[in-house]
Formats: sequence, C-alpha cells, structure tokens
Amino acid sequence: MSTDQQQDRGTSPSSRARVRKDTRAHYVRETVNAILDEAPVAHVGIVVDGAPVVIPMLHVRDGDRLLLHGSGTGRLIRAAAGAEICVTVTLVDAWVLARSAFHHSANYRSVVVHGVAEIVDGFDERRGALDAFTDKIVPGRREHLREMTDREVTSTGVLALSLDESAAKIRSGGPIDEPADLDLPIWAGVLPLRTVADAPIPSPDLPDGLAVPEHVHDLAEQISATTTQGAA
Amino acid sequence: MSTDQQQDRGTSPSSRARVRKDTRAHYVRETVNAILDEAPVAHVGIVVDGAPVVIPMLHVRDGDRLLLHGSGTGRLIRAAAGAEICVTVTLVDAWVLARSAFHHSANYRSVVVHGVAEIVDGFDERRGALDAFTDKIVPGRREHLREMTDREVTSTGVLALSLDESAAKIRSGGPIDEPADLDLPIWAGVLPLRTVADAPIPSPDLPDGLAVPEHVHDLAEQISATTTQGAA
Repeated sequence: MSTDQQQDRGTSPSSRARVRKDTRAHYVRETVNAILDEAPVAHVGIVVDGAPVVIPMLHVRDGDRLLLHGSGTGRLIRAAAGAEICVTVTLVDAWVLARSAFHHSANYRSVVVHGVAEIVDGFDERRGALDAFTDKIVPGRREHLREMTDREVTSTGVLALSLDESAAKIRSGGPIDEPADLDLPIWAGVLPLRTVADAPIPSPDLPDGLAVPEHVHDLAEQISATTTQGAA
Repeated sequence: MSTDQQQDRGTSPSSRARVRKDTRAHYVRETVNAILDEAPVAHVGIVVDGAPVVIPMLHVRDGDRLLLHGSGTGRLIRAAAGAEICVTVTLVDAWVLARSAFHHSANYRSVVVHGVAEIVDGFDERRGALDAFTDKIVPGRREHLREMTDREVTSTGVLALSLDESAAKIRSGGPIDEPADLDLPIWAGVLPLRTVADAPIPSPDLPDGLAVPEHVHDLAEQISATTTQGAA
C-alpha cells in the first residue's frame, strides 16, 4: 500500500502509536472510532514464547476501550491478559488501478491499537460486555432473545483494551501516477469495494410461521448501504 | 467466535501451526490456498522491542510461499526480515444469529501462517514478485501497463514466507442453539455477507475516449460473484 495522500490529522497520544509515514495518519478519536465500529473483525497480536501470534477476534468498542471476544480462544485470552497486545482492523475500500504496476494500491481504512489487555471481570461488567457484542452484531436483536444464563455470562472470556494508544491510517482517492504516464492510453481509476448482506437464511429447525424480523432486515440494509469511502 | 462445527481436515505440519480447538482446523493445502487467494489483505504480526505489532499488508500466494508487499512500511519490512512473523487472513462470511446471545457467532474462513520471513532479493525475483501482486489485484491488467523501471523494481520491499507452517480455520453453517431453545418463538438463521465491486470510477485526468477495459469489468464481476461459503 504505497504512500501518496495527505490527510488532516489530530495529535498522537504516544510515540508508539504514531504512524511512521505520517501522511496518512489520523489520531482523531472520531476517525478511529468510526473505523472500529464498521470493521466486523479484529486481528489481535500477542507474543507467545517470543514469537508473534495473530488471531482474528470479534471486537466491539465500548466508549474509550475496545472489548475482544475470547470464546474458542481461551488459551490466547489467558496469554493476552495483562500482556502487551496489538489490535488491528482494516477495511479495504477499493483497488486503485494506476498506469504503472508500481503505483497500484488499495484504498483502505485501518486502526492500530497498542496496550495492555485486561480480562473483563465481575459478573455485571461481563454481562454488559456480552450485551455490547450482541448489540454490535445485530442492533435491536437483544430484546428478542432469551435471557443469558449465569453460566453463559461467566464462561465467555472478554478482554478490554484502552484506546489511548490508537491511530488510524487512511488511503483514499485515485491513483497517483508519474506525470510522464498521464498521457499514456491506459485506463486508470478506482474499483470501489463494498460489503453487502444477502438474503437471510432461516434455520431449518425454526417453528412454523416465524418471519424474518425487522431488525434482521434492517441490519442487512444497513450493511449493504454503507458507502465505501474509498471512491475517487 | 464460538465453537460448534465439525470439519474434515488434513494433517498438521507442525505443532505450532496446530489449531488448539481442533474441530475447525484444516491443514489441507488446497483449503489454505483458496482462503489466501481470496483474501484482499493480510495482517502481519512481528515483535518489536518485545511487544507485538500487527500491520495490514497486501499479500499474494506464489506456490508454496506467501509474498508480502512492503511499500510504505519499510521500517517494518526491515524489522520482519529474518525474524519470526505470523500472517493471518480472515474472511467473514456471515453473521450467525442464534436464539440466545451466547450462541451468536460469525461464519468465517481464516488462515494463520508462522515462519521466518525473508526479503525477496535479486532483481529478477523481485520483478517476478511484483508481477504476482499486479496479477492478483487485477488479473489480465499487466500487459496493458507501461513497463516497470529498474528503480521501481528495486525500491519495493517484498517479504517471502513459506507456507509450511500454515493452518486454516473455518466456521460455516447455522446457529447451534441449546436444545431447550429450539421451540422458542425466536427467529434464528444466518445473514450471509459478501464483497461486491461497484462501478469503476475513472481517473479525472484520463485521456479522452478511454473506456473501462474488459479486465476491469471482469474483475468487478468476479469479485461480486464470489459466493460466500458461509451460508447455512
């Protein structure tokens, strides 16, 4: 992903969170938040026996912190608790097609968060975190579900990470070609990418007569309508 | 991402590459390859001063190895060369909506690769690697571009990583609810997600009369037609 775009940016909260190639860096919390909220999955880096391990986890932003859902990765949750972790999310918005192979690129929005992860402890806090996950995945669905049992609340590992050390990086716009290439008879531009939701697929074991609820239709519409910010 | 699906799998090449919760693990190279080839971006984990750093990079599979594109991340390319890295790609195929919050999940396909990264050196090998990136991003486009200059070939950092230590993890299918929940009047099912390409946006500085070429239309169609394997 080559560098060629200038963007407005805020002030970095820490030297480690500072993006080296500064031209695409954003430290404004609203920018960081919007990318975190749109991304469906986070990639969480931890160090195990001196070597890096990167695993996908579900995440949800809870104000000024990020919550990470640990089910199925209990070993890594334990390894990450109290340790330095790095959480990165990336939305690929477009392929950028230049006149030269060299200047091909991707439009993207990414966020990197550094910090020490903490286990979310305490029954109520944990329940609140699980509610936040449900509300992120499908807004409006939680009120239709059966209550969580105590065992469900206690058997899910959730990590919390402060957003204090976070930075966004954004590339947008069209290709930045060599001036000498602009007159070549080569088509150049941007191919925008977007995530859409297809028609919901009901479970085969549903009781008769249960229609797809409004909140699922709404979610499908909301996902499909998200305009890529990657357009030229 | 909770655990509840059984999948066929091959044999693991190393203990580190073995996925702990084995029910979703796949070590068959074809499965690994297909996920790597479809994913637009990889998350690369390295250890810097003892702490993990995860950055998004473009990747392309070149037979039995993965190439990573380092432009704009020269510092990290240097930090990664000769070091243990971990490369993870994740495709989110669907949201899985269960009767209980606890059993909500995501259908996904991910690959994790561990190994020691090497800088791709030598002019011809580097040129070949850059060609592979162009061919992955837009198949059929390379023949239409102007030739790469020697400076372009030498100024792009490319890392190579063997796929020997790689494993895929896949969740597919519908929600796995508690038996007691199946009779509740709660809609459950899967909301499939898919990446589509929208209409190509030409650069404003194109010479007159340049139509969107066939290979760009083909790419847009190919991206949008990829069926999610996450359907129930």
